[in-house]
Amino acid sequence: MTIIVDAMGGDNAPLAIVKGALLAAKETDCTIALIGPKERLYELLAQESPEGIPANIITVGASDVITNNEPPVKAIRTKTDSTIVQGLTIVKDGLADAFVSAGSTGALLVGGLLICGRIKGVDRPAICSLYPIVGSVPAVLVDAGANAECKPRNLYEFGLMGSIYVEKVLGRENPRVGLANIGAEAEKGTSLTKKAYELLAGSKLNFVGNVEARDIPEGTCDVIVADGFTGNIILKLTEGMVGRLSKAMASRLPAEMMAAIRSQTDYSEYGGAPILGVEKPIIKMHGSSGPKAVKNAILKAADFVRGDVIRIVKEQIR
Amino acid sequence: MTIIVDAMGGDNAPLAIVKGALLAAKETDCTIALIGPKERLYELLAQESPEGIPANIITVGASDVITNNEPPVKAIRTKTDSTIVQGLTIVKDGLADAFVSAGSTGALLVGGLLICGRIKGVDRPAICSLYPIVGSVPAVLVDAGANAECKPRNLYEFGLMGSIYVEKVLGRENPRVGLANIGAEAEKGTSLTKKAYELLAGSKLNFVGNVEARDIPEGTCDVIVADGFTGNIILKLTEGMVGRLSKAMASRLPAEMMAAIRSQTDYSEYGGAPILGVEKPIIKMHGSSGPKAVKNAILKAADFVRGDVIRIVKEQIR
Repeated sequence: MTIIVDAMGGDNAPLAIVKGALLAAKETDCTIALIGPKERLYELLAQESPEGIPANIITVGASDVITNNEPPVKAIRTKTDSTIVQGLTIVKDGLADAFVSAGSTGALLVGGLLICGRIKGVDRPAICSLYPIVGSVPAVLVDAGANAECKPRNLYEFGLMGSIYVEKVLGRENPRVGLANIGAEAEKGTSLTKKAYELLAGSKLNFVGNVEARDIPEGTCDVIVADGFTGNIILKLTEGMVGRLSKAMASRLPAEMMAAIRSQTDYSEYGGAPILGVEKPIIKMHGSSGPKAVKNAILKAADFVRGDVIRIVKEQIR
Repeated sequence: MTIIVDAMGGDNAPLAIVKGALLAAKETDCTIALIGPKERLYELLAQESPEGIPANIITVGASDVITNNEPPVKAIRTKTDSTIVQGLTIVKDGLADAFVSAGSTGALLVGGLLICGRIKGVDRPAICSLYPIVGSVPAVLVDAGANAECKPRNLYEFGLMGSIYVEKVLGRENPRVGLANIGAEAEKGTSLTKKAYELLAGSKLNFVGNVEARDIPEGTCDVIVADGFTGNIILKLTEGMVGRLSKAMASRLPAEMMAAIRSQTDYSEYGGAPILGVEKPIIKMHGSSGPKAVKNAILKAADFVRGDVIRIVKEQIR
C-alpha cells in the first residue's frame, strides 16, 4: 500500500510533515510518498534521519503549492503541478492508495470531486471529523464543515458514511447514529432536521434519534450527524470550551491530568478527517498538525484503505 | 413596581418559586405578586416565612397550569385561567410591570405575542439568554431557541435588541455584537449569515464581525447573534461541556474552584432570559430553577423594567 502525503500543506510544512512521515515509517510497512519539491524534501529527510532515509519513504516531485487563501476551483484548475492536484491525480490513477494533506480544505474537497470523482449516489461529500469525548473513545461528526447548507438526503448520507467509517476504521460494531438537534422529539428543530429524522429513522442504520447539544459531550452516540454549518459550530465550540476551561484550571490541576484531557480532546492527535463520498481515500489533517498528528493521519489513512470503506459505501448507498 | 411571578411554572414549583420570591422580597422594594392557587400559595408562604409574610409579597389567583407537553397555541387559547394567561393579561393591562415564569417556553412566546403583542417593526421575538464566559462577565446569546429558522432581518433585530439589553440591563456601554459563524470573513457561512453580516455591518451597532465558535468561550463579544437553532446548540453544548469537564476534573480540583466555575457557568443563576421583541417584559427562567435562580430572575426583571429596554427597542427598531 502506498500513501501519498502532501509535504507542503499546513502551517508547519514541510518540516512537521517530513518528521511525521519518518515517525509513521517506523510503525507501518506501507510506502509513504512525500510529494513536493523533491530536492528540498530529500535534504530535510537526510537532516532529520541522519542514520539513513527509511526504505519505505519515497519522494514525488511537485513544484507548486495551493494556499488557503486561493479560490479552490480556480486553484485546482490552474495549479496543475501543485502537490494537491498531482497527489490526487496519482491516487486517481491507482498508483497510490490514499492522499493525506494538511492543506486547504476547500481545495481538497474540490480536487476530490473534480479529480477523483464523487461516489455515484452520494449527493454531497462530507468531512468526517473525530469528535473528542472526555474520558471515553471519540465519536465522529459528519459533516464537520464541507457543506454549510444541506438537504435532508445529505444528512442521511452523512449518517450512513459515518456509520461505515466507525465500524470499519474505528472497529465499533453497530454504531449509534444521532442527529444533532434542539430537542429530543422527532418534530423538533428545522424543516431540515425534521425530514432528515424521517429518513434516518426509516433507514437500516442504528439511529438513536435526535441528540441534544447538551448530551453530545457525554458520548451518547458514535456518529453525530449535522449539516456542515452546525457541525463546524459543534466542533469548534468544543475545542474552544476545552481551551478556555483548561486555561482556567491548569494552575490547579496535576500536570498529568491536564495532559490526559488535552490528548483526549486534541483531535489533531486522532489522525485527520477523511473526506467521505469521493471515489478515493482523502484524509484532511488539521492545518496546524505537528509531527505526531501527521504520523497518526498516515496510519489512519492506511486503516481507511484496509477497511475498504469506499467499496462498502458504494454498496450501501444504492 | 410590581413583578408577577408564575408560582406554578417549572420542575420545582411551587415550593422553589415561593422560596425564591421570599428571598427576592428582602432585596427589593418591588411588589412581588405570586400567581397560582391562592390558598396553597398562602400556606406555603406561611410555612416558609413563619416570622410573617413580607409586606411586598402578594398572591393573585389562577387555577390552571400550562404544562411543557401542551401545544402552546391551543394551551394559550383554551386555558384562560392558567397562570401564564392570567399573568400576561395582568401585565398587558398595566396592573403589573413584568412577568417571570419557569413554565413552557413555547407558551410564554405564544402568550407574549397573542396577549401582550409584538413590538411593531420586530419581525420575530427572540430569547436573550445569558451566555457564561469562564473567568469573565457573561455575554448574551440571541436567539437562544425561539426561532429555529430565521431570515437575515431577524438576525439584525436580535443584534439590536441584545445590544440594548446589554447596555441598559447589564450596564456595559457600546456592546460588541458578533455573528456566530464558521469563518471570520464576511463571505463565510450560509446565505443567511452572509446577508445578516451585511445588515449588521451596515447598521449603527458596534458590529465586530463574525465570531467563530472556537472564540465564543473567550468572551470576544458581548452579544452573540445566531438563529435559534444555532443559538440553542451553542448554549446547550456549552452547558454539556462544562458538565462533562467538571465531572472529569471534580475529584482533583479544590472545591472552591469547582464552585466558582459552576457559578460562572450556571446560567440559571443569572436570572432568567428575557423574551425580547414583545410589548411587555417577560422573563423566562430555566425549568429547573431553584430558589436562588428565582430570586435572581425577579431582581433582573426589575432591572429590565428600570432599564426601559422596551421603549428603547421601539425607538431604535424603526
